[in-house]
Amino acid sequence: MKPEQPLADLRAALADLCAAVPPAHAEAVAGARVRLDRLTKPQGSLGQIEDLIARLAGSTGQIYPPVAQPAILLAAADHGVAAEGVSAFPQAVTAQMVQNYLAGGAAINALAAAAGARLLVVDAGVAAELPEATGLRRLGIRRGSGNIAREPAMSEGEALRALLAGAALVSELIDAGADLIALGEMGIANTTPAAALTSAFTGAPPARTVGRGTGIDDDGLARKRQVVELALERVERGQGTGDRGQGTVVEILMELGGLEIAVLAGATLAAAARRVPVLLDGYITTAAALVAAGLAPAARDHILASHCSAEPGHALALAHLGLSEERGAGPLLHLGLRLGEGSGAALALPLLRGAALLMRSMATFDQAGVAEA
Amino acid sequence: MKPEQPLADLRAALADLCAAVPPAHAEAVAGARVRLDRLTKPQGSLGQIEDLIARLAGSTGQIYPPVAQPAILLAAADHGVAAEGVSAFPQAVTAQMVQNYLAGGAAINALAAAAGARLLVVDAGVAAELPEATGLRRLGIRRGSGNIAREPAMSEGEALRALLAGAALVSELIDAGADLIALGEMGIANTTPAAALTSAFTGAPPARTVGRGTGIDDDGLARKRQVVELALERVERGQGTGDRGQGTVVEILMELGGLEIAVLAGATLAAAARRVPVLLDGYITTAAALVAAGLAPAARDHILASHCSAEPGHALALAHLGLSEERGAGPLLHLGLRLGEGSGAALALPLLRGAALLMRSMATFDQAGVAEA
Repeated sequence: MKPEQPLADLRAALADLCAAVPPAHAEAVAGARVRLDRLTKPQGSLGQIEDLIARLAGSTGQIYPPVAQPAILLAAADHGVAAEGVSAFPQAVTAQMVQNYLAGGAAINALAAAAGARLLVVDAGVAAELPEATGLRRLGIRRGSGNIAREPAMSEGEALRALLAGAALVSELIDAGADLIALGEMGIANTTPAAALTSAFTGAPPARTVGRGTGIDDDGLARKRQVVELALERVERGQGTGDRGQGTVVEILMELGGLEIAVLAGATLAAAARRVPVLLDGYITTAAALVAAGLAPAARDHILASHCSAEPGHALALAHLGLSEERGAGPLLHLGLRLGEGSGAALALPLLRGAALLMRSMATFDQAGVAEA
Repeated sequence: MKPEQPLADLRAALADLCAAVPPAHAEAVAGARVRLDRLTKPQGSLGQIEDLIARLAGSTGQIYPPVAQPAILLAAADHGVAAEGVSAFPQAVTAQMVQNYLAGGAAINALAAAAGARLLVVDAGVAAELPEATGLRRLGIRRGSGNIAREPAMSEGEALRALLAGAALVSELIDAGADLIALGEMGIANTTPAAALTSAFTGAPPARTVGRGTGIDDDGLARKRQVVELALERVERGQGTGDRGQGTVVEILMELGGLEIAVLAGATLAAAARRVPVLLDGYITTAAALVAAGLAPAARDHILASHCSAEPGHALALAHLGLSEERGAGPLLHLGLRLGEGSGAALALPLLRGAALLMRSMATFDQAGVAEA
């Protein structure tokens, strides 16, 4: 992506990407359900795993969806809003943790290895200059977003470039064989933009979307709520028309940020457009999915919830995406995780692989000579 | 185990096994917690996974507990109570499903393979004669248990031999390298003895412990409740002293059955005695753990809950074993499973492996040069 590419071209490229996102493949869903009922087990006895299989079939358009080569896209960025004291950790930790990922010392390294997943780390906008390294992609769009307490997180051009860069990275992963994209993120203070985006897309007040992140105290929590309110006021002032088209969604993203969220939203669209399921991690990746679903509503049919995090707004954001138990699409894990990095997605990956293997290798009642109920 | 072994010897062997079960290793738990707080992640941010690691450390006595070679012990048996119409499936399905396991066509085959676990199938008391086969152990104690609506499930000698046979099988698995034992079961009608045992050990009435199993209708459910009430009345009549020693627990097991439950209870004791964690599956394996914990209360410290099933009594039985969220030992999965076979345990196994790998491979804040909060 060249910096000088005209805005009109970037807008058109995003519109094309959104238009390419198909809805769930109804025949594949129905076919998977028929097959599930013939396998040697009481009907429905695999509970949510059966819903998961149907959802994978709907996304991929295949009755036997493959989950053989998952890839985790871990996008990192800094956030100007860290200056407001909304995080328990100093901003320098973002860059330090990226180095930790590259050195293999973080939780996601262990969990990606355990799950047999490829891990790709992206500098989507870390404040420090990171040295070139194997396994790291540097986008060079911007070093850290604006402080959303008082200014937009990014310009329209930056937002569009980040979206399209995420899409390009995912296309590359899929071209290299990835059949499932798991999302991960790192960015000190990034539960603040996630809360702001969740409020903007769901209409829930900051009191319901702002939590303690990695562990701020009561004062920090109050500051964080105020910051989100200020940012949301700016978004509301900017939206005279109430139009929810591409322009409005991009504007919300520009105002509330951040760069890793934009990259992950673009990644979600690109995977959905190629019928590759997207496995969310926690609150921040789900905020990215809200952006993607705002841009292309059919993207929801390709999104899977790995877990429900300890952040209070996460369940709200998931429900807005239709990822609720009532719809047979609830989060697979409820472990009180609040780490990010894609750790929850990596922990859930084996459930997806197991589900895919069940469909491929189980015998039917007829094949096994087992009597039915 | 020779059939003619005197009862006194069998009782003494069980008493020795129970006496060998150690409590949780407090120093290993504390050491694991210290290590967890030094790893590059916000403290406590891995939620229940951190509790799981501490529990694995307590059971194994190791700060870096290994979960490298899990084995699934799948015990099958028939139940005379099937004659009362308490199951949606005919009794013949037990033997048919054992053949399906041996042929590799069942859910547990796919899930054990996905989890990299060894699967050992045990005929603990199937009504039909099963041919010899690789991967199958036949205990030859009894073909199917008594109908607990009107008679004991088994004699004391049969109960003791099944308990000790389960223990011997697990010792063999551990000698061959297993560092975690997951339990699985198959037995048409076996949610009935599981409900009866859960009522007997927790004191909860059948209305709270009897569910629909693989899917009986309202009439079947009413019959099933009545059967459990009849069986429990017999147990209560037999317990003049109210003593809860080994004799009483074995008597409860004899009355309520079944043979696969006895084998799995013995398996639990043997694993606990060697500090090898035991991963439960659903309601029936948890009933076996109730028997084990009745015989040796310290066995609880070695038991892990893989999931909470759709059967209403399961959560009750888990809570009685201390396997609740409040104690940091709640079930890892909540997927509405009701299949058995060890399927839930196999689905949870990757979480244990991931947890073990986190401890081994993550860097500390010092090692990675990452600033702390």
